[in-house]
Amino acid sequence: MVIMTRAGMPRARVDALRERIERRGLRTHVVYRDTRTVVACAGDASGADVDAWRADPDVESVASWSRPYRLVSRDAAGSSHTTPIRIGSAPDAVVGGAALVMIAGPCSVERLDLLRDAACGVRRGGATALRGGAFKPRTSPYAFQGMGVEGLELLAQVRRETGLPVVTEVMDTRHVDVVAEYADVLQVGARNMQNYALLAELGRIGRPVLLKRGLAAPISEFLLAAEHIMARGNADVILCERGIRTFETSTRFTLDIAAIPVLRRETHLPVIVDPSHAAGDAALVPALSFAAIAAGADGLMVEVHAQPELSKSDREQALTLTEFDALMRAATPIAAAIGRRMPAARPAQMMPAAHGAI
Amino acid sequence: MVIMTRAGMPRARVDALRERIERRGLRTHVVYRDTRTVVACAGDASGADVDAWRADPDVESVASWSRPYRLVSRDAAGSSHTTPIRIGSAPDAVVGGAALVMIAGPCSVERLDLLRDAACGVRRGGATALRGGAFKPRTSPYAFQGMGVEGLELLAQVRRETGLPVVTEVMDTRHVDVVAEYADVLQVGARNMQNYALLAELGRIGRPVLLKRGLAAPISEFLLAAEHIMARGNADVILCERGIRTFETSTRFTLDIAAIPVLRRETHLPVIVDPSHAAGDAALVPALSFAAIAAGADGLMVEVHAQPELSKSDREQALTLTEFDALMRAATPIAAAIGRRMPAARPAQMMPAAHGAI
Amino acid sequence: MVIMTRAGMPRARVDALRERIERRGLRTHVVYRDTRTVVACAGDASGADVDAWRADPDVESVASWSRPYRLVSRDAAGSSHTTPIRIGSAPDAVVGGAALVMIAGPCSVERLDLLRDAACGVRRGGATALRGGAFKPRTSPYAFQGMGVEGLELLAQVRRETGLPVVTEVMDTRHVDVVAEYADVLQVGARNMQNYALLAELGRIGRPVLLKRGLAAPISEFLLAAEHIMARGNADVILCERGIRTFETSTRFTLDIAAIPVLRRETHLPVIVDPSHAAGDAALVPALSFAAIAAGADGLMVEVHAQPELSKSDREQALTLTEFDALMRAATPIAAAIGRRMPAARPAQMMPAAHGAI
Amino acid sequence: MVIMTRAGMPRARVDALRERIERRGLRTHVVYRDTRTVVACAGDASGADVDAWRADPDVESVASWSRPYRLVSRDAAGSSHTTPIRIGSAPDAVVGGAALVMIAGPCSVERLDLLRDAACGVRRGGATALRGGAFKPRTSPYAFQGMGVEGLELLAQVRRETGLPVVTEVMDTRHVDVVAEYADVLQVGARNMQNYALLAELGRIGRPVLLKRGLAAPISEFLLAAEHIMARGNADVILCERGIRTFETSTRFTLDIAAIPVLRRETHLPVIVDPSHAAGDAALVPALSFAAIAAGADGLMVEVHAQPELSKSDREQALTLTEFDALMRAATPIAAAIGRRMPAARPAQMMPAAHGAI
Repeated sequence: MVIMTRAGMPRARVDALRERIERRGLRTHVVYRDTRTVVACAGDASGADVDAWRADPDVESVASWSRPYRLVSRDAAGSSHTTPIRIGSAPDAVVGGAALVMIAGPCSVERLDLLRDAACGVRRGGATALRGGAFKPRTSPYAFQGMGVEGLELLAQVRRETGLPVVTEVMDTRHVDVVAEYADVLQVGARNMQNYALLAELGRIGRPVLLKRGLAAPISEFLLAAEHIMARGNADVILCERGIRTFETSTRFTLDIAAIPVLRRETHLPVIVDPSHAAGDAALVPALSFAAIAAGADGLMVEVHAQPELSKSDREQALTLTEFDALMRAATPIAAAIGRRMPAARPAQMMPAAHGAI
Repeated sequence: MVIMTRAGMPRARVDALRERIERRGLRTHVVYRDTRTVVACAGDASGADVDAWRADPDVESVASWSRPYRLVSRDAAGSSHTTPIRIGSAPDAVVGGAALVMIAGPCSVERLDLLRDAACGVRRGGATALRGGAFKPRTSPYAFQGMGVEGLELLAQVRRETGLPVVTEVMDTRHVDVVAEYADVLQVGARNMQNYALLAELGRIGRPVLLKRGLAAPISEFLLAAEHIMARGNADVILCERGIRTFETSTRFTLDIAAIPVLRRETHLPVIVDPSHAAGDAALVPALSFAAIAAGADGLMVEVHAQPELSKSDREQALTLTEFDALMRAATPIAAAIGRRMPAARPAQMMPAAHGAI
Repeated sequence: MVIMTRAGMPRARVDALRERIERRGLRTHVVYRDTRTVVACAGDASGADVDAWRADPDVESVASWSRPYRLVSRDAAGSSHTTPIRIGSAPDAVVGGAALVMIAGPCSVERLDLLRDAACGVRRGGATALRGGAFKPRTSPYAFQGMGVEGLELLAQVRRETGLPVVTEVMDTRHVDVVAEYADVLQVGARNMQNYALLAELGRIGRPVLLKRGLAAPISEFLLAAEHIMARGNADVILCERGIRTFETSTRFTLDIAAIPVLRRETHLPVIVDPSHAAGDAALVPALSFAAIAAGADGLMVEVHAQPELSKSDREQALTLTEFDALMRAATPIAAAIGRRMPAARPAQMMPAAHGAI
Repeated sequence: MVIMTRAGMPRARVDALRERIERRGLRTHVVYRDTRTVVACAGDASGADVDAWRADPDVESVASWSRPYRLVSRDAAGSSHTTPIRIGSAPDAVVGGAALVMIAGPCSVERLDLLRDAACGVRRGGATALRGGAFKPRTSPYAFQGMGVEGLELLAQVRRETGLPVVTEVMDTRHVDVVAEYADVLQVGARNMQNYALLAELGRIGRPVLLKRGLAAPISEFLLAAEHIMARGNADVILCERGIRTFETSTRFTLDIAAIPVLRRETHLPVIVDPSHAAGDAALVPALSFAAIAAGADGLMVEVHAQPELSKSDREQALTLTEFDALMRAATPIAAAIGRRMPAARPAQMMPAAHGAI
């Protein structure tokens, strides 16, 4: 059962409603919104219950559901719109708005100068946010595991210099607080999509979460992973399709392009696409990016490196700055063709605040 | 070893070259082209052989290869262009040209009136060719298996009426001749992609073949299936990505959108996409179509039915004529955005010849 | 609806029943058995129909079904036993009996002496039947495609010499008759599992068919492929699990060991396993063979070559004769542990008839 | 490079060797063993380095490697034997010894009486260890998430009563210490196989880890996940094949039976199989168990519930105690057939210590 409150109800009154529900033996999961608050109830709500709550003066509408996910479902939003999620202060820094978001940057944070070059370059090309890994999940324990907190500090410094919000991965429940301190968006990697302890922890923070689809996750489990975060109270979940594991080996993973319209139908959460990890090959990134935009994605997350040949990880899949610029230009008419727009390129010089920070 | 002859060599001289090669113990596979003829040689060509043939006065260039496919490979084409394949007499009836091809029509041929309505409708909307199954591969032996030759006759009649070339499936080596008599393009279904007896037979006919990717076929096996056709002498193979089998069940198959740029890199053959069978759901067809166009496909093959609710097979995935028109309109700016164009819509009235034929 | 006739009804009376059913607008598929004949009816049989036919004096029982396959289903057999299928004249030459069947031999027929050595060797080791490909499906058109009819003749000669029944693949509807003339069991390869034209043709012959599971075929589609053969009148279908295509690359395919008990539950048809093609590596064949026997398979089909290093195809996966002997010995107590037995090893010398034939 | 020290070297001397290696710019990962210690070195060891270390008086042998995993590889063990891992004090409580291990119990710990009934029952039937989840990974946030520490306490109590060592899952780096306090073996679930933060933490504890294969993990990534644990110093890793995600839906996952011989070849670590989660259906568990034993697994982990109908999770896949007894009896001759044995059933009465504890 999902209960939507009347518009503009004060928080105290929502809490009172919640208590009334819980006294009936149901567990509640509340997502406070500026306009209407949503209460998802777990337990066995009978048809009689549904009718009873519909009659409650504080309740706008009540929906029962047939799907295992609730808060993430389109029904729970009570609208055909995507829920916009703000990830930075710039006008276009909203995932799910008219402008697509472009999250770009190196696979891993390695050196301040390279990170700064990448950030300035992608900002100039029109990127909305900077990506970069400080904690890196690596299949081999002998590979570079990331710079850790030191990497977070470099990201923060480059954010001060460029104004770009920062998206970075968190892999350990014990790091959630420190990453949330530095990052604007916390990313959950594909291999941690069903790390439920981590999802629960991210449900308690006040920052957007970018959740990547697991390599073997059907859409329904992907949505349930998002539900794990929302059920703990964090409504700002951005979904990211990044390829699934199949028998095909000419690409690293198989980008499930149909996931975009399927997710659009099932959920009100915004959906972006990571063509770089799906392909594992920079040469394929433009075609996959164009496809994702045409299929209705709310944005892209692409790997861009100022000097790919110096990268310690995944260098084959990183675009150069020149290639990123070309991608942005080529994507512009495609976005327009489907009624969206690319984020605007910004002047090359740094912002005053950034200069002061150096 | 792939040998490309000098430009404009007469056929007799090509044949003489071929004999010289075969006398050296190599088997040859010749694809005659208007400009340069290509001879692929199987057997153990040594490095010395390669050098010797390079010195032959009739030989333009010689390539050895590391990949298992030869005639289909981009190297064999000696150019970065897609080989255009004509499928009808209208100016835009070329797969791999500036205009995308739209092959549209019902899953199976069932009744003349419905087929005619579908054909007239898609022609008006801009379709390049008519699809429709006379021989239907069905997982159940109790399902409708198609009308057979009677269905081919209905297709031929509607072709006379509308001028649309006909694309239809062949499933049995014994039917190749009769299908080739009626059809403009012979389609090999996904489940027959590795029916090598059928591929060999299709290599001997003078009609283009539309080869669908097998459900479990890596790109390399898909290309080798095309090679089976080309190695028998038929150079006109159109590749069709139609989704692969994965664990995901929210769609019927998983459209491998990356197959488009990968095939583009590997082969000179044109590539189209079937979003209808991939999705198994008409509501998802537009998004997949847009994605395919943006990713660089040379065309689409979509199921359209004049009255989907009357269809005996796959009715959930067929577009109505209204939906087809909307798809064509919405796709127009996307095609333009990547430098292609949709085929032009044609006037509603029938052609004089068609009127006469009724 | 599946109708089982009363025991021992003469054929004419079965045909009369069939006519009565067809006059009610249903299509029928009849499998004549010595004891009870089964009639599967396609069309829309109402609940009233089912009751009416139950009252018919010639009808023993009527079942409706929820699954798409009928004749192959365990319900249609009216028993919990596997339907035994005889593949040769020797006492143990029955698939689905107390003794397991061992079908062994080279991947492809290449030379009489090698084939004879393999056949004599596997016969001595206890093989029930000889396998060997005369028509070979090959991913590359440039690979050895088999000896064709000449290969069938070598198989027939070695059968005369050794008394071993012959299992060989058919790939083309036009070859069904000639292969049926030479072979005791006709094999359908994984890539042709949904070659419905071929299945239909095999439904009309009087020889057992060994149907291999397709690389991307769910169990339900595998059973429907068998249903295609049975619905045409051939009740002798042997199912063969041979690995499915997955992301794992350390083996050529992934042997779906659970298919054995699942098929046992769903169908009355016997089930064997091909560990050689699943693994693609002779070193893994023993472990997979033991697993298949322990899981309840009715037999194995393994590649054995007298001199694997001379094999033109799949040489990595062929056992030597010594390895085959070791496999048979090691499998003996495993078969005993689950209440089955291995076929008995036979004396090394040739049979008189064979000597005469040389 | 993997360096194996001479036999019986004292720890201080190993540490001195390690320092010498690190001074050459290589990182080291040491696994102390009673007999020979193994030092894996990461970094760029040249051929000259390898030769130099071979000459070191404390070094027995030096291997370089072509595979990405090192400590887990069979080469690193310097032997063809499986490394036995003790999981309890009873003679047969060793994974990788002559007796197979049977880890049995309920999916989740729910009530003391049910857990005790299950434990006593499986102990009587011959189980080596008790499994039971206190922290449960659940796809839905609204499903029962386990009893947490309270569940660990119930497990500890039942261990006191029955003497069975306890295997239980850990999902959060913050819980590693508390779970290690209660459990004899810490289990990593399939969905956490690449939760590298968790693997690193488990590398630092002094308890065996049971690592389940990820749903989309190729064998190579499975071994690298084990390498993550070993590289931190914990050499006691038990691998568990539990099915991979494929297109087949008649079982919950596809048990990759070939993983057993492949892992046997690649690694010295013991390998067990979980047929319950692979099948998702208790009726299939016996056949999969027999197959796993025949293929060479070192043991099984099966779900057994005293009253499956009362289970809060995965009730369809739990065996009853009667079914477990039947499984143990039926498996006995299969184990014998391959030269292993089942653990012996123990008398029904509780041990004195257990009685005292109640």
